[in-house]
Amino acid sequence: MHMTEFRSIVAETGAAHGDPIAVHGLEDVARLCAAADAAFDTYRATPREARAAFLERIADEILAIGEPLIAAAMRESGLPRARLEGERGRTMGQLRMFASVVRAGAWQQLRIDPALPDRAPLPRPDLRLRMIPLGPVAVFGASNFPLAFSTAGGDTASALAAGCPVVVKGHPAHPETGALVAGAIARAVAACDLPEGVFGHLVGPGNELGAALVADPRITAVGFTGSRAGGLALARIAQNRDVPIPVYAEMSAVNPVLLMPSALAARGAALGTAFVGSLTMGAGQFCTNPGLVLAIAGEGLDAFLGAAREAVSAAQPQVMLTAGIHAAYEKGVAALAGAAGVETLGKGAEGTSPCGGAALFVTDAKAFLANPALGHEVFGSSSVIVTCADEAELVSVLKGLEGQLTATLHMDQADEALAARVLPILERKAGRILANGWPTGVEVCHAMVHGGPFPATSDARTTSVGSMAIDRFLRPVSYQNLSAELLPAELTDAAFGDGAPRLIDGKLTL
Amino acid sequence: MHMTEFRSIVAETGAAHGDPIAVHGLEDVARLCAAADAAFDTYRATPREARAAFLERIADEILAIGEPLIAAAMRESGLPRARLEGERGRTMGQLRMFASVVRAGAWQQLRIDPALPDRAPLPRPDLRLRMIPLGPVAVFGASNFPLAFSTAGGDTASALAAGCPVVVKGHPAHPETGALVAGAIARAVAACDLPEGVFGHLVGPGNELGAALVADPRITAVGFTGSRAGGLALARIAQNRDVPIPVYAEMSAVNPVLLMPSALAARGAALGTAFVGSLTMGAGQFCTNPGLVLAIAGEGLDAFLGAAREAVSAAQPQVMLTAGIHAAYEKGVAALAGAAGVETLGKGAEGTSPCGGAALFVTDAKAFLANPALGHEVFGSSSVIVTCADEAELVSVLKGLEGQLTATLHMDQADEALAARVLPILERKAGRILANGWPTGVEVCHAMVHGGPFPATSDARTTSVGSMAIDRFLRPVSYQNLSAELLPAELTDAAFGDGAPRLIDGKLTL
Repeated sequence: MHMTEFRSIVAETGAAHGDPIAVHGLEDVARLCAAADAAFDTYRATPREARAAFLERIADEILAIGEPLIAAAMRESGLPRARLEGERGRTMGQLRMFASVVRAGAWQQLRIDPALPDRAPLPRPDLRLRMIPLGPVAVFGASNFPLAFSTAGGDTASALAAGCPVVVKGHPAHPETGALVAGAIARAVAACDLPEGVFGHLVGPGNELGAALVADPRITAVGFTGSRAGGLALARIAQNRDVPIPVYAEMSAVNPVLLMPSALAARGAALGTAFVGSLTMGAGQFCTNPGLVLAIAGEGLDAFLGAAREAVSAAQPQVMLTAGIHAAYEKGVAALAGAAGVETLGKGAEGTSPCGGAALFVTDAKAFLANPALGHEVFGSSSVIVTCADEAELVSVLKGLEGQLTATLHMDQADEALAARVLPILERKAGRILANGWPTGVEVCHAMVHGGPFPATSDARTTSVGSMAIDRFLRPVSYQNLSAELLPAELTDAAFGDGAPRLIDGKLTL
Repeated sequence: MHMTEFRSIVAETGAAHGDPIAVHGLEDVARLCAAADAAFDTYRATPREARAAFLERIADEILAIGEPLIAAAMRESGLPRARLEGERGRTMGQLRMFASVVRAGAWQQLRIDPALPDRAPLPRPDLRLRMIPLGPVAVFGASNFPLAFSTAGGDTASALAAGCPVVVKGHPAHPETGALVAGAIARAVAACDLPEGVFGHLVGPGNELGAALVADPRITAVGFTGSRAGGLALARIAQNRDVPIPVYAEMSAVNPVLLMPSALAARGAALGTAFVGSLTMGAGQFCTNPGLVLAIAGEGLDAFLGAAREAVSAAQPQVMLTAGIHAAYEKGVAALAGAAGVETLGKGAEGTSPCGGAALFVTDAKAFLANPALGHEVFGSSSVIVTCADEAELVSVLKGLEGQLTATLHMDQADEALAARVLPILERKAGRILANGWPTGVEVCHAMVHGGPFPATSDARTTSVGSMAIDRFLRPVSYQNLSAELLPAELTDAAFGDGAPRLIDGKLTL
């Protein structure tokens, strides 16, 4: 039976809220994809300034929703006000950053190799290259960022910046939040005189709509943040199409934190307390949550473990995003607690609502290496601390890890030689390497990589946060001996000096 | 039974030449992949100048082989001397171009967002990004370019330039050519004091070695030029690994040529003659061969058809690359000759050796649209001319085409309005759009795209010819708050002014 309506759920109570919400059907998928395809040529031809203004208008429209947006997101996610106000700021900041990127124009990767009519033995034709957008993009809203990774999140912002219409499959955990944001985007589309098909929004529970969206022949790429199973399922659909398409799925990571001996000896207790602070932020529901700690046994480790145990025991229960996520968390924690060679170091208080109590486990390198499941993500505030007897064991554990979004070094100057030895391993495992911080803060900027080798993502060649994310939705086209009348304006000689960098005969010019 | 030796075949006669050649086994695949993996960290750490010098040394070593290389390639491919001397020049030119690209350093995509310690509400950490190589790359030699797309061809050159060790699976149609080039690369590796594992070379017929190579967990990307079936098979293996990897397969295209009304009326006969010249070059064995011509019926079309028929009837037989390719060509031509609504316009002379006689077919838009097989590549000098009644039919045919490497416009000024209307369609179909030329000359430069939407390639986001090809083998890594001692040298403040461009706080600086 096809469900025709569903409800917004209050995360804290599990109760339904508001009116029943109509569920879209497969005919809506086809309709929105057709509209996106029809809008593509018009939208991709928008001048840089117009496209930038559109992105900024979306940000303005989101802010203009005001309190109802924050209230809906709080109710549907269980996340606190400060976090969601911050996330709204980040969402608007992302849109504005991409507006500035669109204006700067480097994303076009303009390249010009002028004709060499007198070259022997053969003349060289005039060749000019630019990046063009791929086409309509499917974006999946994420449960853990109802604003910054959802309807108008980073995937949507970067795809729109690239010139791609977007069809969002909203996350069923926050339909009211999604509808408010979708309305803001639709108002920006109208205000900027763009075709309605530039943005579409699909609503419904289950996997049927999303699967149909990825399979639709008019969709040319997919952005997804969520579970490994979900990302792999979408990748399979995308690969089995008549025309396979790229899937940018950000899926799963335990984000190893390495405690280097000297740092551990100097401030083991302080690190233990700070670690639990990072682990329990937002109920541990960050992609970059520190789910794995690696330390070489020695001075300071006991202090670290003691402080971490104390901090986790004092951790207050926090509402998780959905009942399903809470159930998966409890199952994952129970599996760790029962695993061979694993001890429970401490647990936080559990609430009566769907609150996952924070949980810390300790094991040694041998047990960890013997059981790959110990290195899999348990989404929530659970982490495994692995004690290594020596550098050789640490290196074995590192080399055996799957791909990660981040790897963190806590280190002092005396640790630099060891850090330099493990750095090449970390580079092959992670998209971001950080020193003396915690991975849970992801800065939205130009030098950010929120990506990494499989299974952290399905495509390590990119990032889903930061300005480089625009490159995911572009492909190069070369124009040979086209007249100035036919050439895209930005590739004509007349456009030189428009602020976009150009590679002319191999020389970068501003 | 596992074959242990095979023979080099003289293309013209089908006879075996030289001593039996030992066939590598699966243990050799594992050995070479392990060596490549072990060499990776050393090789990727080479300074730009050292890596550039290595690429140039390979070019020098190839030239130093001298006449034996040209003789082997002529014998094994059946291609004439001038073509192979030109191809050798192109091969060396590619290596030298990538040397200059490595030196210039833009491929590193250096990005620096300095710390903002006083930013409210939260300080910004120091973030620095560079591209690093993916790891060992598998490259498949192509039958139709024994030098420029094979052992030391474009894929190998761009992967080595990126800092990736390469394991080549040589094409069994030219084992002696491949062995000579592999020897040249090995000498360059030794001369530059690089680990032997930077380059490996696998030899043997059949698909077993190549399949094992793509499946090897140490391989991180694949470069391939060949058939659609071959490329898709490799893509399937790559996707079904525990850790899927990107496959850059350049597979299949018919490279539509559009004859615009005014150009056709002005010089129909000249276009017909020139078309057959492009079609029959190298026995039609180019990826960019013009296998499809689209014209709106009108003045000049008869002259075009008449001149093309005359030219193709006068075309001399040319030896094809292998007996298998010749057999497939004959089968494809026979299928076209027997297809509903298709007329044979003319055929060239057939030789006694494995020579595919050139063949031209004519059909109309309705018959073409009714039979998708008419739009599939027949590798060799065969082409289908489709007459369209009007612009609407032309647009229908264009919209129904699969992805292409190239699309060509023959046009005069009076055709510009029509060309402008079809250009957006062509951009969505092809990697390169050219005016008043023929697609068979592929310039190796910065603004070249030799790529295009599926099935022209398996990944339209890239090119396999030109300097942008290096990007295929790189991924971004971000470094947060790392000390100058630990940062990669090129990301330290001390390296500013080394010639590489940097995006600093979003501003491009040279």
